[in-house]
Amino acid sequence: MLLLIPGPVQTRPETRAAAAQDIAPWDMDFRPVYAGIRETVRQIAGGIEGEHATLPLQGCGHFVMEAAIRTFVPAGGKVLIPHNGAYADRAVRLAGEAGRRVVALPGPDTRPVTAEEVAAALAADPAISHVAMIHNETGSGIVNDPELIGPAVRAAGRRLILDSVSAFGALPISLAAHPEIDALVFTSGKCLEGLPGMGFAVARIESVTAAAGNAGSWSFDLSDIYQHALRAGWGSIRFTPAVQALAAFRVALDLHDAEGGQPARLARYRENARVLHEGVRGLGLTPYLPWEAQGPVIVTVHQPADPNFALQPFVDALKRRGVLISNFWNTQAPTFRIGCIGAVTPEDMRTAVAAIDAALRELGVRRREAAL
Amino acid sequence: MLLLIPGPVQTRPETRAAAAQDIAPWDMDFRPVYAGIRETVRQIAGGIEGEHATLPLQGCGHFVMEAAIRTFVPAGGKVLIPHNGAYADRAVRLAGEAGRRVVALPGPDTRPVTAEEVAAALAADPAISHVAMIHNETGSGIVNDPELIGPAVRAAGRRLILDSVSAFGALPISLAAHPEIDALVFTSGKCLEGLPGMGFAVARIESVTAAAGNAGSWSFDLSDIYQHALRAGWGSIRFTPAVQALAAFRVALDLHDAEGGQPARLARYRENARVLHEGVRGLGLTPYLPWEAQGPVIVTVHQPADPNFALQPFVDALKRRGVLISNFWNTQAPTFRIGCIGAVTPEDMRTAVAAIDAALRELGVRRREAAL
Repeated sequence: MLLLIPGPVQTRPETRAAAAQDIAPWDMDFRPVYAGIRETVRQIAGGIEGEHATLPLQGCGHFVMEAAIRTFVPAGGKVLIPHNGAYADRAVRLAGEAGRRVVALPGPDTRPVTAEEVAAALAADPAISHVAMIHNETGSGIVNDPELIGPAVRAAGRRLILDSVSAFGALPISLAAHPEIDALVFTSGKCLEGLPGMGFAVARIESVTAAAGNAGSWSFDLSDIYQHALRAGWGSIRFTPAVQALAAFRVALDLHDAEGGQPARLARYRENARVLHEGVRGLGLTPYLPWEAQGPVIVTVHQPADPNFALQPFVDALKRRGVLISNFWNTQAPTFRIGCIGAVTPEDMRTAVAAIDAALRELGVRRREAAL
Repeated sequence: MLLLIPGPVQTRPETRAAAAQDIAPWDMDFRPVYAGIRETVRQIAGGIEGEHATLPLQGCGHFVMEAAIRTFVPAGGKVLIPHNGAYADRAVRLAGEAGRRVVALPGPDTRPVTAEEVAAALAADPAISHVAMIHNETGSGIVNDPELIGPAVRAAGRRLILDSVSAFGALPISLAAHPEIDALVFTSGKCLEGLPGMGFAVARIESVTAAAGNAGSWSFDLSDIYQHALRAGWGSIRFTPAVQALAAFRVALDLHDAEGGQPARLARYRENARVLHEGVRGLGLTPYLPWEAQGPVIVTVHQPADPNFALQPFVDALKRRGVLISNFWNTQAPTFRIGCIGAVTPEDMRTAVAAIDAALRELGVRRREAAL
C-alpha cells in the first residue's frame, strides 16, 4: 500500500523496524541515541549551540504547539495568528482555550499571509507580544514563509512561534538567521519520515528560561522541560516518552542526512508535488491552488462536481488500487488531498495519478466540464 | 536483556512486531482495531456500556492525569490528594500548576492511605469536590485501594479520579461498582504490556459531558475528546495518535485476554513480586516494604549502607548479567527498584535475584549487617 497522507507518513522499512524493540529511555545505551537526536534536530533547524535547545514533548503536534503558546505567551497575553487555514484555526482554539487573547488575522486559505498584513496588524495593536504562524498548511497546501514574515515581526519588536509540524525537515529554516523566533515546533512523523508519537520544540534558550512560570500547565511547560534536562545532566526526557518512536526517529534522521538533508528532501517532495499537480490537471481535475501557491507537502484537489463523486467511495476505489489518501478534507471548499511527503517518490506519484484516473472511471465520475 | 522496570515494560515479540508498520489512523481497516481497543479496555475496567467511555489521549500518564484533573475539577476547584509517594507528589504539582486548589493529605510512602484518613479530610473541608488518588505507587510499591477509599468518597458525596497508570490490567477494578469514579486513567505501556505512547481515561459519560468547559486547555479536554469521537460516528481519535503503539496495544490486549485477563495477570505479577521479595531478603537485603504492604508491581529495596554500593555501578553490573533495572529511585529513603510487570515470569525473577547476588559480590558490597 502506498500511503499518501500528510502524516503519519509512509516510512522506510529500516525506520519502522527500529520501533520493534523494548527500550528503557534512561538506559546508558539509549542516552547517546537521544543526545544525537537533539543535536541533529538543532542542526537541521539552523540553531546555534548554546543558544538553541531541542526540547521533547510526548504526543502530537497540537500538544507541542499548545505548549509553545503557553510557555512563551503569558496568561492573558496577546498573540496574532495569521488565520488562513485549518491548522491556523486550531492554533486559534489552542491559544484561546489556554486563556491567551487571540487576534486572528483573516485571509483566504488559497494564499500565504503577507509581510504587509502582519506588519499592519502588529502596528495596530501594541499589546500583541507574539505571532504564532503555521509554516505549512496541511489542509490547502500553502506555505506561510518565515523568510518574509520573520523580518516583519522582528522589525515590530515582537516574537515569533513557528508551527513547522508539516514542514520541518523539508522547508528551509535557520534559527540563527531568525532571532525573532522563540521556538519552532514539529513532530517525528512528518517530513522527517519517522513514526508519530513525539513532538519537539527547538527553542531559544534565553526565551525559554525567561518564560518560567508562564505555562499554567506542568505538562506543557517547555521551560520546566528545559530545566529538567539541565538538572539531569544528560538531557533526560521528562516523563515516559514514546521511546520506540524515538528509536525509529534516529534511523529516520540518518536517512534524512544520507539523502542529502533538507535541500534534497525538499527537492524530492517538490518533484512529487509537481508530478501530482500536473497529473491531476491532465486528468481534467482542478488543483485547489495554482502552481505558484502550491507548497511541496500536499496537493489538494477540488472534488469533481459530478454527483457520482463521493469522497469515501473514491478513497476506497483508490485503496483497491494500492493507494491510500485521506478520507477527510479541511479546506474552505470540498477537496481531496494527496500527501507528497514520506518515503515516496515521483514514480509513486505517477502511480497515484494513474490510480486516480482508474478510480474515477470506476465510479463513473466525469471531469473537465465539472472542473472548469 | 531482561527489562525489569515499571514501564516501559518488556513486551512480547508479537506485541512489538506490530509497531513496525505504517498505518493511517482513520483508515477503514484500522477503525475496527481501534474500536476493539476501546471496548476491551472498558470491559477490563468493569465499565457499563452506554455509561462509561474509553477516551484516548496522546502522550504519557502525567498528561492523561492532568487532563482528568482539568476536565473534572473546575478551575479554582479543590481536590484532595493522598500524598504518600512520588506519583502523588506529581499529581499535586499537576493539579496546582493547572490552577486547582490542592489539599495534600500527608502520609508515609510505606503504607496505603486509609478510608478513615480520607473521610476525615473530606469532612473537614466541604469545598473539596474531588479526590485524586494514585492506585499503585511506582516509587515504593504500595497500593492505595479503591475498594476501601471509594466508599469513603461516595459516602461523603464527593467524586474520585483514579490514577491507575501502573496498576490497570493487573489490579482489579470495577467502575460499575464504583459510581463515585469520574475517570480512571492509565497508559498502554504498563501492566497491559503494550508500548508507551498513548494514555487513556475510562470515564463516566455523565461526568465527562457535564465537565464541558472546565479544562482550560483544548489539548487536555477529555470532554472535547468525547464529543469529537461522538461527532465522527466511529469514535475518531482527535489529533494524530502514536498509531504504532495502538496497533501493538491491540496485540497486547489479546495476549492479556489469552493469559486469563486481569486475575491471571495479577497472579503472575504477585508471584513475581513474592519471588523477588523473598529472594532479596535471602540475599541479606531489606525490602522497602514489609510483605503485607507490598504490591505486585514493583519491589523496592533499601540500598545497602556499605560505601562500596552506588546505584549506577550496581545497575551496570546487573546489566552485564542481562538484567536491566531503573538507575534512579524516588522513595523517601535511598532504594533501588525492580519491576515485576511486563512479559516476565517468576523464573525471570529467580534469574534477577541471582544476578543481584553476583553484582553485589563483584562490587564487594556487604549486606545483612548493613541491611539489619
